[in-house]
Amino acid sequence: MKSFLTILTAALTIVSGVCARNHAVPFERLDKNDTLLLVLDLQVGLYNLARDWDPTLYYNNLIAHAALGQLFDLPVVLTTSAQQGPNGPLPKEILEMYPDAPLIERQGEVDAWDNAEFRKAVRDAGKSQIIVAGITTDVCTTFLALSLRAEGYSVWANVEASGTTTELIRDVSNMRMEAAGVKLVSLFSIVCDLMRDWRNTPGSKEVLPWLNQYYPIYGMVARGHAAAINNGTIIPGEGGLV
Amino acid sequence: MKSFLTILTAALTIVSGVCARNHAVPFERLDKNDTLLLVLDLQVGLYNLARDWDPTLYYNNLIAHAALGQLFDLPVVLTTSAQQGPNGPLPKEILEMYPDAPLIERQGEVDAWDNAEFRKAVRDAGKSQIIVAGITTDVCTTFLALSLRAEGYSVWANVEASGTTTELIRDVSNMRMEAAGVKLVSLFSIVCDLMRDWRNTPGSKEVLPWLNQYYPIYGMVARGHAAAINNGTIIPGEGGLV
Amino acid sequence: MKSFLTILTAALTIVSGVCARNHAVPFERLDKNDTLLLVLDLQVGLYNLARDWDPTLYYNNLIAHAALGQLFDLPVVLTTSAQQGPNGPLPKEILEMYPDAPLIERQGEVDAWDNAEFRKAVRDAGKSQIIVAGITTDVCTTFLALSLRAEGYSVWANVEASGTTTELIRDVSNMRMEAAGVKLVSLFSIVCDLMRDWRNTPGSKEVLPWLNQYYPIYGMVARGHAAAINNGTIIPGEGGLV
Amino acid sequence: MKSFLTILTAALTIVSGVCARNHAVPFERLDKNDTLLLVLDLQVGLYNLARDWDPTLYYNNLIAHAALGQLFDLPVVLTTSAQQGPNGPLPKEILEMYPDAPLIERQGEVDAWDNAEFRKAVRDAGKSQIIVAGITTDVCTTFLALSLRAEGYSVWANVEASGTTTELIRDVSNMRMEAAGVKLVSLFSIVCDLMRDWRNTPGSKEVLPWLNQYYPIYGMVARGHAAAINNGTIIPGEGGLV
Amino acid sequence: MKSFLTILTAALTIVSGVCARNHAVPFERLDKNDTLLLVLDLQVGLYNLARDWDPTLYYNNLIAHAALGQLFDLPVVLTTSAQQGPNGPLPKEILEMYPDAPLIERQGEVDAWDNAEFRKAVRDAGKSQIIVAGITTDVCTTFLALSLRAEGYSVWANVEASGTTTELIRDVSNMRMEAAGVKLVSLFSIVCDLMRDWRNTPGSKEVLPWLNQYYPIYGMVARGHAAAINNGTIIPGEGGLV
Amino acid sequence: MKSFLTILTAALTIVSGVCARNHAVPFERLDKNDTLLLVLDLQVGLYNLARDWDPTLYYNNLIAHAALGQLFDLPVVLTTSAQQGPNGPLPKEILEMYPDAPLIERQGEVDAWDNAEFRKAVRDAGKSQIIVAGITTDVCTTFLALSLRAEGYSVWANVEASGTTTELIRDVSNMRMEAAGVKLVSLFSIVCDLMRDWRNTPGSKEVLPWLNQYYPIYGMVARGHAAAINNGTIIPGEGGLV
Amino acid sequence: MKSFLTILTAALTIVSGVCARNHAVPFERLDKNDTLLLVLDLQVGLYNLARDWDPTLYYNNLIAHAALGQLFDLPVVLTTSAQQGPNGPLPKEILEMYPDAPLIERQGEVDAWDNAEFRKAVRDAGKSQIIVAGITTDVCTTFLALSLRAEGYSVWANVEASGTTTELIRDVSNMRMEAAGVKLVSLFSIVCDLMRDWRNTPGSKEVLPWLNQYYPIYGMVARGHAAAINNGTIIPGEGGLV
Amino acid sequence: MKSFLTILTAALTIVSGVCARNHAVPFERLDKNDTLLLVLDLQVGLYNLARDWDPTLYYNNLIAHAALGQLFDLPVVLTTSAQQGPNGPLPKEILEMYPDAPLIERQGEVDAWDNAEFRKAVRDAGKSQIIVAGITTDVCTTFLALSLRAEGYSVWANVEASGTTTELIRDVSNMRMEAAGVKLVSLFSIVCDLMRDWRNTPGSKEVLPWLNQYYPIYGMVARGHAAAINNGTIIPGEGGLV
Repeated sequence: MKSFLTILTAALTIVSGVCARNHAVPFERLDKNDTLLLVLDLQVGLYNLARDWDPTLYYNNLIAHAALGQLFDLPVVLTTSAQQGPNGPLPKEILEMYPDAPLIERQGEVDAWDNAEFRKAVRDAGKSQIIVAGITTDVCTTFLALSLRAEGYSVWANVEASGTTTELIRDVSNMRMEAAGVKLVSLFSIVCDLMRDWRNTPGSKEVLPWLNQYYPIYGMVARGHAAAINNGTIIPGEGGLV
Repeated sequence: MKSFLTILTAALTIVSGVCARNHAVPFERLDKNDTLLLVLDLQVGLYNLARDWDPTLYYNNLIAHAALGQLFDLPVVLTTSAQQGPNGPLPKEILEMYPDAPLIERQGEVDAWDNAEFRKAVRDAGKSQIIVAGITTDVCTTFLALSLRAEGYSVWANVEASGTTTELIRDVSNMRMEAAGVKLVSLFSIVCDLMRDWRNTPGSKEVLPWLNQYYPIYGMVARGHAAAINNGTIIPGEGGLV
Repeated sequence: MKSFLTILTAALTIVSGVCARNHAVPFERLDKNDTLLLVLDLQVGLYNLARDWDPTLYYNNLIAHAALGQLFDLPVVLTTSAQQGPNGPLPKEILEMYPDAPLIERQGEVDAWDNAEFRKAVRDAGKSQIIVAGITTDVCTTFLALSLRAEGYSVWANVEASGTTTELIRDVSNMRMEAAGVKLVSLFSIVCDLMRDWRNTPGSKEVLPWLNQYYPIYGMVARGHAAAINNGTIIPGEGGLV
Repeated sequence: MKSFLTILTAALTIVSGVCARNHAVPFERLDKNDTLLLVLDLQVGLYNLARDWDPTLYYNNLIAHAALGQLFDLPVVLTTSAQQGPNGPLPKEILEMYPDAPLIERQGEVDAWDNAEFRKAVRDAGKSQIIVAGITTDVCTTFLALSLRAEGYSVWANVEASGTTTELIRDVSNMRMEAAGVKLVSLFSIVCDLMRDWRNTPGSKEVLPWLNQYYPIYGMVARGHAAAINNGTIIPGEGGLV
Repeated sequence: MKSFLTILTAALTIVSGVCARNHAVPFERLDKNDTLLLVLDLQVGLYNLARDWDPTLYYNNLIAHAALGQLFDLPVVLTTSAQQGPNGPLPKEILEMYPDAPLIERQGEVDAWDNAEFRKAVRDAGKSQIIVAGITTDVCTTFLALSLRAEGYSVWANVEASGTTTELIRDVSNMRMEAAGVKLVSLFSIVCDLMRDWRNTPGSKEVLPWLNQYYPIYGMVARGHAAAINNGTIIPGEGGLV
Repeated sequence: MKSFLTILTAALTIVSGVCARNHAVPFERLDKNDTLLLVLDLQVGLYNLARDWDPTLYYNNLIAHAALGQLFDLPVVLTTSAQQGPNGPLPKEILEMYPDAPLIERQGEVDAWDNAEFRKAVRDAGKSQIIVAGITTDVCTTFLALSLRAEGYSVWANVEASGTTTELIRDVSNMRMEAAGVKLVSLFSIVCDLMRDWRNTPGSKEVLPWLNQYYPIYGMVARGHAAAINNGTIIPGEGGLV
Repeated sequence: MKSFLTILTAALTIVSGVCARNHAVPFERLDKNDTLLLVLDLQVGLYNLARDWDPTLYYNNLIAHAALGQLFDLPVVLTTSAQQGPNGPLPKEILEMYPDAPLIERQGEVDAWDNAEFRKAVRDAGKSQIIVAGITTDVCTTFLALSLRAEGYSVWANVEASGTTTELIRDVSNMRMEAAGVKLVSLFSIVCDLMRDWRNTPGSKEVLPWLNQYYPIYGMVARGHAAAINNGTIIPGEGGLV
Repeated sequence: MKSFLTILTAALTIVSGVCARNHAVPFERLDKNDTLLLVLDLQVGLYNLARDWDPTLYYNNLIAHAALGQLFDLPVVLTTSAQQGPNGPLPKEILEMYPDAPLIERQGEVDAWDNAEFRKAVRDAGKSQIIVAGITTDVCTTFLALSLRAEGYSVWANVEASGTTTELIRDVSNMRMEAAGVKLVSLFSIVCDLMRDWRNTPGSKEVLPWLNQYYPIYGMVARGHAAAINNGTIIPGEGGLV
């Protein structure tokens, strides 16, 4: 068995190389036909716990997260935690986006995966890639993301739409998810990965007006560009710049 | 004249006391019947220079600034700087708010007060209190605010709706305006000062829905409150808290 | 009148010196017999708007503010804004501290000074120095502080017990109050100014246990000191340090 | 052996996949019947070294850490380092919480695991999951957490209750622990994981009053909710928000 | 004299109003025909003390400061402190900009105004408005700025081109200068104030190419604008944005 | 098979050790003969989205990134995304650096690797080590870096030359790349790794003048050193310092 | 009296101009023959309250503050607050610097000026300019600085040697002192102001070795300069830089 | 071979568990008999590139790093990079600590491991654990640390004694080292790991006076403790605190 051990040792050197990461590493991309969007406990009471964000910005971010389903015609599952209690209901603008989506009102389970109705809704969607954001990051998002990873789902955490009490807690929660293979991604990254090509209209809506609304930095650059084409004139000294 | 000098010296001691600020100091409040709202160079190209803000947040802040006129039925003057050039036009959602307001397209004057048409528009409004925000804070906002102070207007700078390249520049510009008597105020401060009393409907719109849209932190607290009244139930252990 | 003008000019040079601040400037100190403590809109709903603080820390700070009255036997006036609405009631631990203090429930006035009952309560206290903290800093605290300054009261703003949505708003609001002669002070500064001498027991309570509870950094240093005296032993190498 | 090598290579490709994290990853949850709480060197002298926290906040956090045992009836082991020396004793409020818990006064061992009495106390508790926090993060917490991981224990580091001299040291220490499989978690995450369901009363105390005391942000949202149900009235404009 | 006292008291009430800043306040603008540019101790050795800036950024800022003279044909005075010693010489690119400008090599005076040759150079320029930046902010810039203010010059401190060891020192030094009437301004503010109108070519150079080099954020917006006019095409969904 | 399992278990213990990182780990260094430089979407419109950097600094950083090819005579591939649209063209100073390099104008593909022409250009370069930077970090840089890792390329991400909207997004994107084995490196690190020895002139240019231009902190230290040798004199008290 | 009023009004316009600060403002400089150095409550127990500084840095700063007296042969007064209590004694290295200086051990007075012995020691020094630093900034430093200002002393607060619990408290305390005419200055500013000219040896010690010890950033630049002169050689490419 | 695959799969599940980190992980501790201390390029010229630290603090940190050898009688190897050039020599206080230690003056090699003399000095020391710090973190420290890891050494990077131009570069460099198994540790962590027990005198010096000098936060707590034992008296209200 000595030579076997030698081979194993050699193999483990390769593993070591893998850990040192000099090796091809698969790149999993979002496929809009295999993606489910979760709106997890983005409730009006819990919103007050999202202190790692400017409150106006965070409001926009959580609505934008929910609106991803509209842009790409993704299936959506909504869930809340004890919504008659202090946590409160979902914002009605989210409810109005998806009047037909399952809304699982958990009576007490912290980890949504502990709720059978929720598990069923997720499984019924039949997708392997799941986008998620919730309040709080350290509890609702982390517990569900880790539960989904334990089930073998690929999980994309929209880091701009989860919130918690401090930046330290956000960071260690994100590290914890990342260590379990959760992808930590931005809203723009999700949009671009699902869209793939700027020439596509990947769902029933055009991408640019959606970005203009939910990612206004891009909208503003586009507006400046369109205005220049429509009405722009070269100003003195500008001619030589490009 | 000796005793006169004595009196003067005594008086100057009082002045010294004033500077030491142990003395009544007048408090000027916003009066919605004496207030003009300025939308100054909040242009889609200049928006890119507002780096002291998260770009999504700043977009919301500049729209909210413009919307103050709608809430309190204030007269509004719009102005732009060289809008066919890189600075670009105003966002169309602002133009659509005030189709009848004067829009002064300055061809080159940096300080809006250097433009006769703009001066006329401001003077025609006939108000003594002016709310302003612009891009950039150090140039457009500061130059106009100081020009208005030199004319004897009271000026309220909405610090959440001006933007510039760095926080240092923002801070020294704010200090410079403050030293000339400009009031540095928040959006919420402007709303509350114009409203005076939560029981008022100071213009043609209700305040709370407006806040819900532009100051969502208050909207969210209100939603939680309304939801509790409508559908809330006391959860275990909650009874003794209040 | 020429020589008069000369004298005036000379005098104004002195004023200029005053502004350059090379001159004695009076120092007003808190006098526990002339001080009123205000608890202004520190309501459980408004607490959610105090985003410039860690939420656990801010909770402690607002309770500590209220407890200043107990330590120095100060008269206290409590007031709330529209407390049946989203702003909510005061924390009950504050109410229980001062069962006999006036509690002015304003139905709508944003600036507490606009409420006649509140004005009466403040005037009835008969003090010239007022300590205040409220939520939000830019609205409740600033409006009342400026109103009190306009009445000629001396005002101490406890900067650790007011809260608002962002640090920028906190800073410009503090600057605005400071420009009107409001003293911006810390909890520890208020305690030490009212106490004057560590040998005093300025009210009915001892200072050190109070600090141990509300300013634990001092309490911890004191505990280490007391433990060293009671049970401490010099460890190797420690002998030469002092 | 060639085909064996092939299999191994294939297997290592799977390992590579695991490292790329496209694979189910187990999620270990806290089980209140298998959990031990450690209070490690949270001494009044060492408290002065916890400079990565506001001192008032950190005081609250370390008391809250200790109080976890009361909420879930967890076994608790207390230990101190050279407590007659500068490090000082534990705060008496912690000692009073657990008069019957083992208190191991280490005379000199930095790593608590080097002390036989401490090892015995931990082993006697018979649990496999250990929650820990100490001062300093880089020394006391890290050394013990890594020692426990080397013994095969699961370790949850309450990142809100350890402290050290700088944020950089905190961060690299947390990274070091995380690389050894220590879970970096918040107080709220520990509570929710042990509680599992909001309908549970997992120990002899109710969860909500405990949260109200040690995690006041949640307590305040709950108070607002309860107050709305008890005494709330819908204010103008609020009706349409939910 | 009683009525005189009454008048004085009334007058002092007006002064109080001035301090409360409800009064017209003069606005002094930069006049390119009355402005002198100072390059003060921006030496290659002292550069290492400018720790309140990213070093690459600060290098660009100090070169941009020097280049203001080229854009507006301003007179320039250069000075150094003990340049054979550790402080080192000026960067040669600055020397090459102004081969004919006075370069005062102070052998030891910290405050440049203590050097007779420097005072002469400044006075010979015959301007009343002086733009200055130096290293360090707290010593070279502050001492000279205050000396110039004591002489009655108007002083504009380019806050982006002075540097010192910490942000705290920068801030208190800026406050100290501001209290003596020094204007704290940005590079862009100086350019726009001297230029007055975008249609001007205020010196021998065009403004836009200068901005493109030294204030690239504006250059980039202008390049995007010019490119859109030259080669741009409206992309799908963009049409409706403006 | 039992003993085989034993060996495997022993082997896995070694793997565990590898993960615990007590084992030799290969160190891959940049080889200038095996390196390709990518300029990815550093376009004048997209530049406005790079909000995690001071805009002046970032401009310098992206030009410095492009200039790496000149210093080490590296092959360079340029690519743009939809450059007639809002994203705009590359800065002309980059185009002028490499008039003969392939410039792949992608019409719509977000991930450059999805474009066949780009893939061909990269493969034709025939290098195994790729240096990359792009806008935005979370989309352009991350997607391409992960695609290249999936192809088995070694990837060095120049973290100073990618930009995105927030620091949080930058950090999670960097973590995501790092987890796939992408090396996160600084400009100076790339230069020093390619140079290997300060005595080398690794391409057709000298390193020090290049650093003086693009990494001025080093240039300034070198200038001070050269000036001291050329013209320096020891000042009083300096003699004893070294 | 009408014309008198006219003159007064004109005069007040000048005052207004003074406040607008377009006027010469005196610049008071430190005179080493008229300066007293105060070491105020820099006690080993209070040191633990100085949380606005890295603790190692702050230790160096407080020792450097004390050492100013040695460099410039300034008179020094030392004072402590209740030093047998938790506040503890002064560091012995400070006591050893000034064995003959008055050391006023206040038994209880918070504001040192309340202690007759301390007042006598300050007055006996016979200086009009006082440099001060203490712990905490908001209490010890502020109270004494304001008391000294009320007596007409000029006060220089060394902002690097006072400490307190948070940066917010530091900032508002500094603002409060600044409003009373206290100069907020850095260590380097104090040294340079007292020294006036680099060619001076203003006391019995040379300045450069002192700076090397207490302001090492300058020492390091000087060491590099001296080493270059002593042993330096121009490296390839360096020749053209200066 | 099917069952073999089954076993392998099972084994890989264990590996997966290892990655999920639910498994014992070895804890390597520093052994003072097996440790070598490296002082790497901590040169007076390079010091100017260490911008991620306050300069006074960083000076103290790099001296403290060097002094570790004195406390624990560790072998020390010193090395410099091109020290006649801009990088400059080591501080003489470090050279004086170790007059007999090897000092390897590299003429050009960036990575110290590329220098044969340095490799020999390290190997001759005969230790397997190496503590290192250098300037810059991203180049000198990272390259050597990774080279040492490739040789199988255990490496402890003292994160407080390396420096570089920005915090971002520091962080990604630390992540890069951590991924290769480098331990990122604080000064205090190194001291405590080498000391093991507070009762030890691990080298020829006592630990506490060393800490008092290089880690003054602990020294100050110890001084307060010793002073309390020597001269302390319980103050009013203190008795009940412990």
